[in-house]
Amino acid sequence: MRGFFDPRQRAHAPAQELHNGGFVAYAETPARADAILAALGPLETPADRGEAPILAVHDAAYVDFLKTGPARWKAAGRPGDLVGYIWPIVGRRPLALDRIDALAGRFSLDAATPLTADTWTSAYWSAQSVLAALDAVLGGDRAAFALCRPPGHHAGRDYLGGYCHLNTAAIAAQAAIFGGMAPVAILDVDYHHGNGTQDIFWNRGDVFFASLHADPATDYPFYWGHADETGEGAGDGTTLNLPLPQGTTRDAFRAALATALDRIARFAPDLLIVSYGADTWAGDPISRFGIETADYRLLAADIAACGWPTLIAMEGGYACDALGANVAGFLSGF
Amino acid sequence: MRGFFDPRQRAHAPAQELHNGGFVAYAETPARADAILAALGPLETPADRGEAPILAVHDAAYVDFLKTGPARWKAAGRPGDLVGYIWPIVGRRPLALDRIDALAGRFSLDAATPLTADTWTSAYWSAQSVLAALDAVLGGDRAAFALCRPPGHHAGRDYLGGYCHLNTAAIAAQAAIFGGMAPVAILDVDYHHGNGTQDIFWNRGDVFFASLHADPATDYPFYWGHADETGEGAGDGTTLNLPLPQGTTRDAFRAALATALDRIARFAPDLLIVSYGADTWAGDPISRFGIETADYRLLAADIAACGWPTLIAMEGGYACDALGANVAGFLSGF
Ligand SMILES: [Zn+2]
Ligand SMILES: [Zn+2]
Repeated sequence: MRGFFDPRQRAHAPAQELHNGGFVAYAETPARADAILAALGPLETPADRGEAPILAVHDAAYVDFLKTGPARWKAAGRPGDLVGYIWPIVGRRPLALDRIDALAGRFSLDAATPLTADTWTSAYWSAQSVLAALDAVLGGDRAAFALCRPPGHHAGRDYLGGYCHLNTAAIAAQAAIFGGMAPVAILDVDYHHGNGTQDIFWNRGDVFFASLHADPATDYPFYWGHADETGEGAGDGTTLNLPLPQGTTRDAFRAALATALDRIARFAPDLLIVSYGADTWAGDPISRFGIETADYRLLAADIAACGWPTLIAMEGGYACDALGANVAGFLSGF
Repeated sequence: MRGFFDPRQRAHAPAQELHNGGFVAYAETPARADAILAALGPLETPADRGEAPILAVHDAAYVDFLKTGPARWKAAGRPGDLVGYIWPIVGRRPLALDRIDALAGRFSLDAATPLTADTWTSAYWSAQSVLAALDAVLGGDRAAFALCRPPGHHAGRDYLGGYCHLNTAAIAAQAAIFGGMAPVAILDVDYHHGNGTQDIFWNRGDVFFASLHADPATDYPFYWGHADETGEGAGDGTTLNLPLPQGTTRDAFRAALATALDRIARFAPDLLIVSYGADTWAGDPISRFGIETADYRLLAADIAACGWPTLIAMEGGYACDALGANVAGFLSGF
């Protein structure tokens, strides 16, 4: 299977994140990419397909904030990396805001995803990697892999969060539709709910979003991913959330996966995009499922058996020692 | 003029707040109350009117969070005071959330207002003080003062923020309506927009909310207080925002005040509640207006000249050295 990664995706490296009451070391490190590369061997460098596919999903003012925010933050004399402290929880809308602190909250959902001067570059190339992998599938490959780091599934049209800035799965889905592969299904098997992806396609009937994840009653992102969230308008019924309890192991996960695949099959997608997180692994430091390394091949084989052209986009996974083996195991199922 | 304060309002004292990129000392200190008391002399202790007037404005699950959150936070092993790190910026709704970190974001709008084990007690007695002052006015007093500390105007029906937990002005307004004084006008002359008060009465026609404040394009709370926010539904036209630029001094402030009072006069209130913040003072450490101490008597006299029975509820003001003189000056205008 072809795989894609650009070394510039390593540059983004915030110092810390606000988590459970205090600042802790940022968990989404460049070492994650290194661990995956060590297991997979060298990946192909993506071509530069420009900003248009990004702007087809993300708000232009938000993209501008990602590019220019860190310099404005520094110019304002703020310490450390750019992070908000107030969020528009009601009446959220586009506004002409002058102060960088205001923009920081306007374009984010948490205080756990600081922006650095390198963030835009890394997120941009993460998006280019997913677009290169999509082109491989559009060109006839059975499956392709994008080492998306930073990850994407928590980022919405105009907000970052959960270590995510550009929603790579959504960017690929939109580009696939423009490329003639439609409808598209996105299957999110990261430990955490893919709230950004859900939000982007909430009202759309041409993208089915199915997610297996830890119950948001107990796990980040808390406010999204509940079973009663099923889409609205043209997207009514095209969102499927299957929250699972902490401690879920292979068989229960596999049963939920079968439910998701069955629903996706009825949607008859031209393309499947898998948001793959290895933070479902039993030893992940910030997650609480019990999937073993050997399980990933089996789970991937269940997906592969459906026969859809498949793009696999990397999302989370924070146990660097096991990350390479978990990713390699998953890809081996295809 | 009668004034009310309970010593238990001093107990709430968080260590720090997230502000402009880092944790800084919490600005809304018990010393603020001490400074006002030193200038005014002893105030009356309010009677205990119970929780019903609070629950007439605030969500019961939110009140429960204020009471029990800090103990749950401690039991979960979290360091320091209770503060969120992720906020429901889209699709906000009531949810059954198990984790204290989830509740912390669900019931707040910022990371600048930590909860301590003493917060509920102080906020409760701040509300009792405003209810006692209301009773003085209901009983025929021309005006009465409540030393509300912690303040209230940034708190919504189910969220804290901006140093505020229970919206004292809103609690008094609702109690006044229950007591037969209706309609009610709230005039907010704190430096910051009273977003919580606006939100609580956004859809209601029986409370007029007028606010003079620093332009939210440049100042907290950023996302609310813009001139185009005028209410909805039954409350369409009963919200008036008059944002003013940083550097505003007495004459421009007074002109805006005249505009607000004219609009309120057309509403013909039975009662005026003034959310008074002394952070409009020229030397305030976190604000950027240029009102002088001697100006407050004049501004208050403009309000008093309208003749409405008036309840004055304390909001912000962070220059402790000048706070007593500024409050005393304002009250002397009535
Ligand atoms: Zn994850
Ligand atoms: Zn204020």
